[in-house]
Amino acid sequence: MIRSPHALDFSKAREKFLSGADDPRAYLERCIATISERDPQVRAFVTLGLESARRAADASTERYRSGKPLSAVDGMPIGVKDIMDTADLPTQMGSPVYTGWQPRWDAACVHALRSGGAIVVGKTVTTAFAGGVTNETKNPLDLSRTPGGSSSGSAAAVGAGMVPAGLGTQTQGSTLRPASYCGAVGFKPTHGALTMQGVHPISLTHDHLGVIAGSLADVWCVASRIAHASGSPGTTGLHGASATLPAARKPRRLLVLHTKAWESEVEAPTRAAFDALLGRLRWGEVELVARADNTNFAVFEDAVLGKFVDRSIDITSYEMKWPYEQYAARHGDLLEKRVHERLARAHEMSAAYYSELLGEKAAMKSRAREVMANADAILTLSASGPAPVGHSHTGSRSYLLFATFLGLPAFSLPVMEADGLPVGAQLIGHAGRDGELCALAHWIMSQVHG
Amino acid sequence: MIRSPHALDFSKAREKFLSGADDPRAYLERCIATISERDPQVRAFVTLGLESARRAADASTERYRSGKPLSAVDGMPIGVKDIMDTADLPTQMGSPVYTGWQPRWDAACVHALRSGGAIVVGKTVTTAFAGGVTNETKNPLDLSRTPGGSSSGSAAAVGAGMVPAGLGTQTQGSTLRPASYCGAVGFKPTHGALTMQGVHPISLTHDHLGVIAGSLADVWCVASRIAHASGSPGTTGLHGASATLPAARKPRRLLVLHTKAWESEVEAPTRAAFDALLGRLRWGEVELVARADNTNFAVFEDAVLGKFVDRSIDITSYEMKWPYEQYAARHGDLLEKRVHERLARAHEMSAAYYSELLGEKAAMKSRAREVMANADAILTLSASGPAPVGHSHTGSRSYLLFATFLGLPAFSLPVMEADGLPVGAQLIGHAGRDGELCALAHWIMSQVHG
Repeated sequence: MIRSPHALDFSKAREKFLSGADDPRAYLERCIATISERDPQVRAFVTLGLESARRAADASTERYRSGKPLSAVDGMPIGVKDIMDTADLPTQMGSPVYTGWQPRWDAACVHALRSGGAIVVGKTVTTAFAGGVTNETKNPLDLSRTPGGSSSGSAAAVGAGMVPAGLGTQTQGSTLRPASYCGAVGFKPTHGALTMQGVHPISLTHDHLGVIAGSLADVWCVASRIAHASGSPGTTGLHGASATLPAARKPRRLLVLHTKAWESEVEAPTRAAFDALLGRLRWGEVELVARADNTNFAVFEDAVLGKFVDRSIDITSYEMKWPYEQYAARHGDLLEKRVHERLARAHEMSAAYYSELLGEKAAMKSRAREVMANADAILTLSASGPAPVGHSHTGSRSYLLFATFLGLPAFSLPVMEADGLPVGAQLIGHAGRDGELCALAHWIMSQVHG
Repeated sequence: MIRSPHALDFSKAREKFLSGADDPRAYLERCIATISERDPQVRAFVTLGLESARRAADASTERYRSGKPLSAVDGMPIGVKDIMDTADLPTQMGSPVYTGWQPRWDAACVHALRSGGAIVVGKTVTTAFAGGVTNETKNPLDLSRTPGGSSSGSAAAVGAGMVPAGLGTQTQGSTLRPASYCGAVGFKPTHGALTMQGVHPISLTHDHLGVIAGSLADVWCVASRIAHASGSPGTTGLHGASATLPAARKPRRLLVLHTKAWESEVEAPTRAAFDALLGRLRWGEVELVARADNTNFAVFEDAVLGKFVDRSIDITSYEMKWPYEQYAARHGDLLEKRVHERLARAHEMSAAYYSELLGEKAAMKSRAREVMANADAILTLSASGPAPVGHSHTGSRSYLLFATFLGLPAFSLPVMEADGLPVGAQLIGHAGRDGELCALAHWIMSQVHG
């Protein structure tokens, strides 16, 4: 299994909406049937809003009938991570601090999708505040395994074919890891390219909005819709981007990132799958530059994945002062132990030390530009293997830290398998050049999926 | 009148808290007495929270008695603009869309001040969503005049001596203009230096958090507290800054900005006051570079204050899609006409045009660095004159657009008068160098106030 066999491709269904062979209401009903069948076991959704979804689907159907769809996402059923405000559904952050909380307005990302005709089917399960250890969601491809986290519900819903796409966030590995485990495409744009307004934060310098979908085309049209219609500036990575999937472009040269986890975490079947992918790319005449071939990159990799990791966690701890200090003061007993630990760490840190860390982070970003200058992208794993058995944690983040901490755009592509389960290949691009990265991702997907 | 004769200086009172000659509860009671006396006419506050303020003041008094104040703002009564979330007081955005709205949590700026011991006395009047035309607040120095807007209540409360400091925001001129009209010090830091989390937005690229206070020392300790304790990264302008007012530093060279409004809006008494200030600076051997002496700067000024102004308003209109589109859909009748006009404009704009504008804005910021390279700061007016008579609008923004659109840090200093009323001098600095600018502001204030 490479991509989840259940995964949907809305962009193809939409062609039938346009031709009249299918319609958004019928499409939604098939999604609802899958939810009814699978969600009692998978538990991807915290809250469903089926009646308002049906009304929205009927309105979308009318628009297609009259030849006036609002956008490329018109009629697309989506799952929304439950740390994103929705005006018609509770937003409970995966935490008892927010049990029953009903926002008045949609988050900017939700608004952008709805104003383009997308249909919010329900709110998807997250770990507590997108930073907690685990939750109730199961991997739809093997219920004994974790779907990954923290965007567990969105990935599981996509992997189970309940919806074609879902919204996630990534502060360390919360979008690409679950996408990898659930056989979906994941996309974490350049830091700041998609607005987090109305989404509960962990760390302003590390939080990214993310998209998980069954196809690259769907990931792209959701992301570009949010960039255009949320009214938020974002970094340049997605502005002016067309909703249409960029044409496939073959990479000339890729840096291959193995990391130390290759030795300590990655098992033989995943190694073999990654090696086979590299072989396929070489056969396609893509130049692959490994660590041993590029001293500059090796030194940089060690710096980022060495002590910078701890420093980066210090940054996120410091930034958790707001709003977590308020939760600790009023509902300390409802928080996970590690939130208290992070706040304790924040209080040990001086403003000067925090400023120094921000300076170091900025310097690392500059260095990333230099060491990547002669390569189209970096290729690595999205996770150290297929979804682990068990539900007490959401998997290793070893392969996710690099792109997240540097704010680089990254896709998880469902192009490998190990032990009969999907493992994603992670393609990491240049900051602010998300569209170019998507074109490369398109080419790699085409090589594997035809 | 230069500075409002009623304005307080908390930094001096605090010395007495430390020595035991005064205490925060007694200080607060004096503020409350002034509010009781003046606010029925001035109408600076929408909502007061006097009982919780008294409890907070008692706790602060205890901390000073035991020699353990939390920060330089411990015991400082503040007014909070009513577009900033407060967990214990309604937050009504100056708009019937939010009548009675009670947030669950404090905005990041409010939290940072409270966690340092500051006392929220109440919520101050704003124009609708900080973008509306007018409101009920009167200028405390002359009730027949506007206090300026949109941070009307915070400026009026400070100018009346009801509180030593208040929070504001500035998207065009909303902090420095009312500070100028009410005889207070105003500070709008480098764009992004102080977090807007939990503050209602107009435009992410133009909104600035601002501070208004009776003294430069108080403005600075409030701003630096927010920078440190909100847990938000911000731009570098305020990070690592000490709560102590930077030592006065004499500027070597200032660029003097008159703008076209000097001819069309500024009347003789204000011209005379500004000329007298320039004379005083020259006498102090500060080199003043006027438009005629610097072609580069003249060209740049024309570019920024020419068609760039309209383009900048296009940017803000585009960014108003969220959340204003939702208000328009659900409560269109409760919005001011110009919100509908802005949204209509936003819908005419393509994503490509918007991207182009952002590029132009970034280029203007780069050019600002170049043309200011050999100067310590820019000196201009904070407003085209003293507060105008009447309450149907909040005054001209001609002098405020330059620094706001470029995201440059700026102070309004109460160092001039015209017609017996205060007029602020605006000192505009280099992006990210807020502390240096404050040192220059300190020197200018010392020259005038001794």
